[in-house]
Amino acid sequence: MCQLLGMNCNVPTDIVFSFTGFATRGGTTDSHNDGWGIAFFEGSGVRHFVDHEAAAASPIARLIKQVPIKSKHVIAHIRKATQGRVALENCHPFVRELWGRYWVFAHNGDLKDFAPVLDGPFRPVGNTDSEHAFCFILQELRRRFGDAAPPQALLQAALADLVAAIAQSGTFNLLLSDGTALYAHCSTELHYLVRQHPFARARLADDDLSVDFAEVTTPRDRVAIIVTQPLTEDETWIRFAPGEMKRFVDGAPVA
Amino acid sequence: MCQLLGMNCNVPTDIVFSFTGFATRGGTTDSHNDGWGIAFFEGSGVRHFVDHEAAAASPIARLIKQVPIKSKHVIAHIRKATQGRVALENCHPFVRELWGRYWVFAHNGDLKDFAPVLDGPFRPVGNTDSEHAFCFILQELRRRFGDAAPPQALLQAALADLVAAIAQSGTFNLLLSDGTALYAHCSTELHYLVRQHPFARARLADDDLSVDFAEVTTPRDRVAIIVTQPLTEDETWIRFAPGEMKRFVDGAPVA
Repeated sequence: MCQLLGMNCNVPTDIVFSFTGFATRGGTTDSHNDGWGIAFFEGSGVRHFVDHEAAAASPIARLIKQVPIKSKHVIAHIRKATQGRVALENCHPFVRELWGRYWVFAHNGDLKDFAPVLDGPFRPVGNTDSEHAFCFILQELRRRFGDAAPPQALLQAALADLVAAIAQSGTFNLLLSDGTALYAHCSTELHYLVRQHPFARARLADDDLSVDFAEVTTPRDRVAIIVTQPLTEDETWIRFAPGEMKRFVDGAPVA
Repeated sequence: MCQLLGMNCNVPTDIVFSFTGFATRGGTTDSHNDGWGIAFFEGSGVRHFVDHEAAAASPIARLIKQVPIKSKHVIAHIRKATQGRVALENCHPFVRELWGRYWVFAHNGDLKDFAPVLDGPFRPVGNTDSEHAFCFILQELRRRFGDAAPPQALLQAALADLVAAIAQSGTFNLLLSDGTALYAHCSTELHYLVRQHPFARARLADDDLSVDFAEVTTPRDRVAIIVTQPLTEDETWIRFAPGEMKRFVDGAPVA
């Protein structure tokens, strides 16, 4: 299986602290060695880094840990291959354009015998169940809403239907963002927390690194971190219920 | 205006030498300061780096100059904004998926009053004439060939028609690749060379760097470099004729 990491914020924030702990699981504290990737929205643009090397050893992952790229929506993934060979085209997150926006998608899980017909404009480049599911989701959203993006609440409802149907085929924990919101669905395992004023100190579970967030934030900052397994030991992580989908905007889940 | 750099090879080759000279034009020896980008095919996957910083100052460009990423098809761009603000979503190259392949596109030039109707699945995310033209090209290729990619020669013929029509609106030097071939079109200025056995020494025009290619190649290697303005002073560059389109495969133009 794989692990997911997402970040959603009310102001552009770097993910150096969380990614450092997460990337350590890509070959050091855990065995998610079969590639990794991360995508940062910057306005409507996307910085997209994928690599078939283990995150713990990759020079590009080292850059991400060193250069504080700021973003309001980030999705990262470390891969342990279940379907699809170890190759760049099979590394998550995947990126496609729909309605003049980039969509970024990453999946943790395994879909069995999942091959719905793709008769729209989205086709997988690699051979993972994940990319097939992503293409299917975009195809069905485009079929349902036509040529323009619907309001977020409508989109979330449509997405919940689609994702529930796909999850009949297996494990389907996912993160998805179009740069206006970050959608997270839990099939088996996903956690989140919201960091906000008053900020405290936190220490990574996987690395010898701690940060006092009070020193690097303003009282108005708010950051949601979504991750397969909690990244810190001294913060309270909330576990998603199986089948739960949340939409994060401005650093918090939308009620 | 901007500058383009492309590389097409018969075996995966790094672009460190050429990109080093090219990136120097992004803020040091020339004033293409408004962002840059590069995309490397690795099989059917793509590594895509874009940045709104000047290439000469960007830490990500520094990484590209240090880490020898090997690829058979590379497209890079340094931007001097004419249309569209300085922002990540306006940095070339642009990437879209069509027929289960990624397509990478970069443009040097300026299209005036160019706004054909986009009624297919490809929409610009940013607001450049270039991304609009790229979406239009993919839309028309999909309209003409339907659901599957045609043979390269047919694709090139269709592309030549489309590009000639678009070039009626202004300057349209471009590089385009789907990871199986690299297409280059010259409207006003584009050069190329083919490096092959017997290899010689070359020195960058923009940087104090030289390489003896005989030391880093095998006799079977072949590499085509396509660029707006020649990168070296001691090699013979061939100038494209205005209106000329070439398809590069395995490190050489296809006759």
